[in-house]
Amino acid sequence: MSALNHTHDANARSWVESANAADSDFPIQNLPHAVFRRAGSSEAFRGGVAIGDQVLDLAALAAQQQLDGLALDAARAAALPALNDFFALGGAAWKALRHALFDLLKNDAPVATVQAVRECLVPQAEVEYTVPARIGDYTDFYTSIDHALNITRLFNPEGDVTPNFRWIPTAYHGRVSTIGVSGQRFHRPMGQAMAPGAKAPTYQACARLDYELELGVWIGSGNAQGEPIALEHAEEHIFGICLLNDWSARDIQFWEMAPLGPFLAKNFATTISPWIVTMEALAPYRQAWTRPTSEPQPLAYLENAKNRESGALDIRLEVWLESEKARKEKTGPSRLSSTSFRHQYWSVAQMVTHHTMGGCSLNPGDLFGSGTISGPGAGEAGAIIELTRAAQSPVTLTNGEQRGFLEDGDAVLLRGWCEKPGHARIGFGESRGTVLAARG
Amino acid sequence: MSALNHTHDANARSWVESANAADSDFPIQNLPHAVFRRAGSSEAFRGGVAIGDQVLDLAALAAQQQLDGLALDAARAAALPALNDFFALGGAAWKALRHALFDLLKNDAPVATVQAVRECLVPQAEVEYTVPARIGDYTDFYTSIDHALNITRLFNPEGDVTPNFRWIPTAYHGRVSTIGVSGQRFHRPMGQAMAPGAKAPTYQACARLDYELELGVWIGSGNAQGEPIALEHAEEHIFGICLLNDWSARDIQFWEMAPLGPFLAKNFATTISPWIVTMEALAPYRQAWTRPTSEPQPLAYLENAKNRESGALDIRLEVWLESEKARKEKTGPSRLSSTSFRHQYWSVAQMVTHHTMGGCSLNPGDLFGSGTISGPGAGEAGAIIELTRAAQSPVTLTNGEQRGFLEDGDAVLLRGWCEKPGHARIGFGESRGTVLAARG
Repeated sequence: MSALNHTHDANARSWVESANAADSDFPIQNLPHAVFRRAGSSEAFRGGVAIGDQVLDLAALAAQQQLDGLALDAARAAALPALNDFFALGGAAWKALRHALFDLLKNDAPVATVQAVRECLVPQAEVEYTVPARIGDYTDFYTSIDHALNITRLFNPEGDVTPNFRWIPTAYHGRVSTIGVSGQRFHRPMGQAMAPGAKAPTYQACARLDYELELGVWIGSGNAQGEPIALEHAEEHIFGICLLNDWSARDIQFWEMAPLGPFLAKNFATTISPWIVTMEALAPYRQAWTRPTSEPQPLAYLENAKNRESGALDIRLEVWLESEKARKEKTGPSRLSSTSFRHQYWSVAQMVTHHTMGGCSLNPGDLFGSGTISGPGAGEAGAIIELTRAAQSPVTLTNGEQRGFLEDGDAVLLRGWCEKPGHARIGFGESRGTVLAARG
Repeated sequence: MSALNHTHDANARSWVESANAADSDFPIQNLPHAVFRRAGSSEAFRGGVAIGDQVLDLAALAAQQQLDGLALDAARAAALPALNDFFALGGAAWKALRHALFDLLKNDAPVATVQAVRECLVPQAEVEYTVPARIGDYTDFYTSIDHALNITRLFNPEGDVTPNFRWIPTAYHGRVSTIGVSGQRFHRPMGQAMAPGAKAPTYQACARLDYELELGVWIGSGNAQGEPIALEHAEEHIFGICLLNDWSARDIQFWEMAPLGPFLAKNFATTISPWIVTMEALAPYRQAWTRPTSEPQPLAYLENAKNRESGALDIRLEVWLESEKARKEKTGPSRLSSTSFRHQYWSVAQMVTHHTMGGCSLNPGDLFGSGTISGPGAGEAGAIIELTRAAQSPVTLTNGEQRGFLEDGDAVLLRGWCEKPGHARIGFGESRGTVLAARG
């Protein structure tokens, strides 16, 4: 657990006024990283940090005389069109840059500093983003027991998760080439599905298109092949977290996935939010990671005191759906569900350690999906198949439309933030993706 | 199917004498690509082409005046430390370079040419190789019905493959970060396994370590997200083929893989051969891809006349095992099995088309594993779990040692070649990987 320091001081204010609004996702205590350029321009993409409704252009900042030493090295790396080199610098560099930017953006910064740094701000409303790193490998986990139980019980109301779920932070490798940043639009996939009782599958447009509410975990520093990362060091390898939508074609998935897992059902698109919130910024929102004594406790390599004391993260999450009709009529999106990441059965540190335990190497810029995040209560499910019980109980949008699964034109928005009394709000911004009609 | 042309002329000879030996893997009709440097040097890796027992250094050749036009552009790209840019040039460039190199290396080339090109040769015995491209995504297929049946019947002698096997070229995403070139050495993985009847899994070194005989299919040109590759164009997107060993930890696999597929059981190491044999060089070894009428025939998007006429490739394959004892006593490796790729239930073109059918994008340098290649006969199985029926019937090596699964110090060698009367032998060289003791 990162100890709290002055960059977590809830009373700190920025001279960027929009950062001081109570509902801002990006106060001076957050300072998440992204890669951006002016929308519609042919500018080079470069790294930036969010402050209020602005992007601090790190390429512009690094060209000034405001930074030195490790913070300057870090800013130069974080200004590149992909953050891999910045990640590879490691935790001391990440922290040095965060602390230096905090000082530059704080409302008691010298007037000359404010004047100079203000030149490096670009309004978020005027920029577009890209995937912030070259992702070497993408791994999708399956670590919410409420999600796993919801899915299992669609088929067998008395069913339980597979026996390995309680012992292994289950994961499978996913597709890098189709990961896109918020704003992604994709065609409803074609695929094979097998109707109940049919003798042969049919080739058709996916009829059961779904989203999955997940968080994306960005690996900062990696490990050599054959050298596992022990749990006590796992957190040092994580740079930060974003929102992630693991779009899923349920009819394709249920036909294809035995015995080797999901493939075409998942690899047509995955949407991430542009901003990576650092583990440092999330430190105030750590909680005890506990598992009821009625549940099996982890094997020794997946358990230690630090993980028990602070392995959980209380990140609040919401899924919203905006239909094409709602968009045209400007009636706004409808909230489908709301939960917190703190309910996960396995922590992000446990994911890192398990992933590398057999010798697998991680590299800076690798991405993990947390797996669908569903909480224990009604309305906390992270996929529409759970909310509607596979379209048996459709949800009603605020404009009266109903949904069993997603329809063409639907946009799905994920939102996330941390908030509690006495601490600054730490927001993730938004991930938005839109379903286009199938290309028959 | 590539039409045969003069570069397939079995009577063609090279002025590189070793290329003319009847048992050479690399005659002038082959010309496979790799990335190499002098062993133990700090030279930059660069692209080369095999001819007999030599490597033709394409960086050195491109600096001469022997090539022009598209062949020169192709040679410059194929000389880089990663072949992605060469792949992206597409089939016309691949063919232009092949034909130009054939002319330079043919025994009737002008004396001045021979003198100049000879300066670009480096003995294969003096080089080391690296993974020949930046692999964006790695996909492992499961397309041998004999393998699938062998595995199924270990557990249920009357069992059949899952119902989707006969309709889908099944695949799952694999791990890029641990793919290494021939010569790879890796530690036996640690992992979780669940003993029969046990209440909890144990954390231990893999006790059932296996290899899988596969071919690696290198994607040359890709496709845009949302734009599937139709079967009639699938072959145009494939650059060539190498050997691939998908090392597998069976005890870890059987515990972890339901429901999302293999993960730690596979991601600790994958070994490929350095040389990529082009689809052009393999053209004489195409065969009819047929499926007995008793089997379901593919859905329309996975079937056409070209695939039926020439979708199969008659690539002969062998697995050899060299124990530490055999290595020390120089008694040589033992052959464990022998088969051909022509028995596959799905063709490589069908793999490409199915992979992209839902909108997934492929990129130059993506790699497919064929899945374990087992033939129908005894002694044709591509994994030791099949040969030994999970160690119930151990195999005996030529020095008398027995193996149920792999032991520490074992090296597994894959070999592949094409051969038939009236045609030049087209070899793949070798893929070798060695098991080191677990790091407890």
